[in-house]
Amino acid sequence: MKSLNPPLLVALNKLSFQRNIPTCFVKNISGVAYTFSRHGKVTDVLKKETQSYDEKKLGPSQVLVSFLASTIGTTDLAFIRGMGKLDGSSSIKLPWVAGLEGVAEVVATGNQVKSVGVGDRIIPFGFAIGAWREHGIFSESQVVPISKSVKLEYASLASGGPCVAYRLLEDFVHLSPGDVVIQNCGTGAVGLSVAQIGKAKGLRVISVIQERGNYGPTVERLKAWGNDIVVSHRYVGTFAMRRLLEDLPPPKLALNGAGGPTATELARLLGKGGTMITYGNASRKPFSIPTGIFTTNDISLRGFSMLSWLQSKSESDVKKMLQSVTQMMENDQLKFWIERKKLEELEVALQALSRPQQERRIVLVTKKGEMYLSG
Amino acid sequence: MKSLNPPLLVALNKLSFQRNIPTCFVKNISGVAYTFSRHGKVTDVLKKETQSYDEKKLGPSQVLVSFLASTIGTTDLAFIRGMGKLDGSSSIKLPWVAGLEGVAEVVATGNQVKSVGVGDRIIPFGFAIGAWREHGIFSESQVVPISKSVKLEYASLASGGPCVAYRLLEDFVHLSPGDVVIQNCGTGAVGLSVAQIGKAKGLRVISVIQERGNYGPTVERLKAWGNDIVVSHRYVGTFAMRRLLEDLPPPKLALNGAGGPTATELARLLGKGGTMITYGNASRKPFSIPTGIFTTNDISLRGFSMLSWLQSKSESDVKKMLQSVTQMMENDQLKFWIERKKLEELEVALQALSRPQQERRIVLVTKKGEMYLSG
Repeated sequence: MKSLNPPLLVALNKLSFQRNIPTCFVKNISGVAYTFSRHGKVTDVLKKETQSYDEKKLGPSQVLVSFLASTIGTTDLAFIRGMGKLDGSSSIKLPWVAGLEGVAEVVATGNQVKSVGVGDRIIPFGFAIGAWREHGIFSESQVVPISKSVKLEYASLASGGPCVAYRLLEDFVHLSPGDVVIQNCGTGAVGLSVAQIGKAKGLRVISVIQERGNYGPTVERLKAWGNDIVVSHRYVGTFAMRRLLEDLPPPKLALNGAGGPTATELARLLGKGGTMITYGNASRKPFSIPTGIFTTNDISLRGFSMLSWLQSKSESDVKKMLQSVTQMMENDQLKFWIERKKLEELEVALQALSRPQQERRIVLVTKKGEMYLSG
Repeated sequence: MKSLNPPLLVALNKLSFQRNIPTCFVKNISGVAYTFSRHGKVTDVLKKETQSYDEKKLGPSQVLVSFLASTIGTTDLAFIRGMGKLDGSSSIKLPWVAGLEGVAEVVATGNQVKSVGVGDRIIPFGFAIGAWREHGIFSESQVVPISKSVKLEYASLASGGPCVAYRLLEDFVHLSPGDVVIQNCGTGAVGLSVAQIGKAKGLRVISVIQERGNYGPTVERLKAWGNDIVVSHRYVGTFAMRRLLEDLPPPKLALNGAGGPTATELARLLGKGGTMITYGNASRKPFSIPTGIFTTNDISLRGFSMLSWLQSKSESDVKKMLQSVTQMMENDQLKFWIERKKLEELEVALQALSRPQQERRIVLVTKKGEMYLSG
């Protein structure tokens, strides 16, 4: 990773076009930001910059925030690499700040801002908010205030997987307590959230996960966090799996974040009239569909994209969702297995991320964020 | 094909349990029926029997009919073979009469029958009505009266492909004149009906067909019958196909009767938010789905089965559908390329069916049916 090379003002002016950052910069508040000006291998293209903001130049409907924590995961890396046409990627123009999810504190507001005030804790919401930085400017409509009682590390990832899980369980199928939901990617942020939100709703969640070295402890942890049944990708296509499901109502909803063979199996295991939603493709593989599931089992296959959802919904829908999710975090109904790193030590965090069997979600904490954690 | 071997009454008593055929049979009306008592190769298992009906023993809500014509196609053969778990096959108990679609004339009615009378032309509706016979008994609720002006050969197949096509265009997506529908199996009974019903609705229909020896004339015929564009299965996945579609609104609805690679291509060609309905699988192959169509294009994949539809709808819905379809036949908006054979010469018809590039739909005509055709 190189330090900031290109003329700072050129880069920042380009950013300002995207983000309504005031075009004049005074060293009022300055801090670290990780940006990339071309897609590629993360350690090649990511640059550590210093970005400065003059709060006096804040637009009337804008808020200046200090990030407290943000997450770092495979989706962030894919976004930087420009791989797999990450949903919405076409809407950004490089250079851009990396990091898709984070939590921040309001440090200044434009004179027309009403819904948040200085000192409020907020989550910026939208595609590619640029969370790997110390400060940022957003429009008032992009930030959702949340309670300070929400654990900072959890709040930093609330706008990602938990919100997708919330929508997947809310928007497609009418689910009642006792209904069965089956999913792959059980260890992902969406999968973990589905199990926990599902448990809170009284659903029975069955997760398929990859069978790796630490499979046994992972299964136990997933069960402790809401899953009724956890099976390996090797088991899901077997006759034994069908026997296992015989004791339950037929699954009404399947959630596919992986593609590949497990997606096919989920579709096969759905009950008559069931629905499978594809929200991601961790395996980068297509999946095969036996046509009989349509003609004899009346299955629907649909898709979910948070970006499309955002485009069709109002600010109050976004607010309601984020507040529901963070409320669950506050109530200890939605948690994650976290490993903290310092934002300024991103290289160390990237190394941790690439460890085999890294199961803890890595959270990058800013200097300001650390104050809250130690306080 | 062997002639009737097992004791007639045993076979007919089993049938009566299924169909409410009176349990006492007197030789009042008798005629040919092709039955099978096990699944297998059609020429091995199909038997030509004589079945007799006593109209005096007709139940109060039953009608005795004489078949005039029925169709013979690949679905009929698959049904006899017991292959591919033909939708609803599990609901029949052998022995059974072959033939899935036909048209008949009422010759006697039970004393409570009100909606049809002697001499009326009707279409029996339901799964496996047993159309390859001269006479049959149905409940009043199973028969739909149609106009005698409908060409007999067309009426004989109205309850099959045309009704499926009618539902596919009616039930899933709101279609307005100018909207684009894309389908595979363009030469099948459903595909031909989709093009013609689609044309009547002002839709633009694009059909993918197998490229065979008589490809050129087939394309011309399909275009004359309502298709806007006809392309080969080799062409559909090419860049040229995408270019071709650029001049049209993005397809809203795709209809998949084939599975395999063309099904994947149809799903890819759908516009944002589009729907693909699978109603059959002529290729007997699953199809592959790139997950991106769900996450970036918000495609829905659904299925249609006439049997499930029937189970959820009322007699008046069935009547409305069949009368719409036959009305279109009467108005010359829905036609088929027909080759007539005599019901009693089923073996000749089967040979014709297996000819390479047999494009005309074969219709089996009974002796009584011939009277109307010559008259």
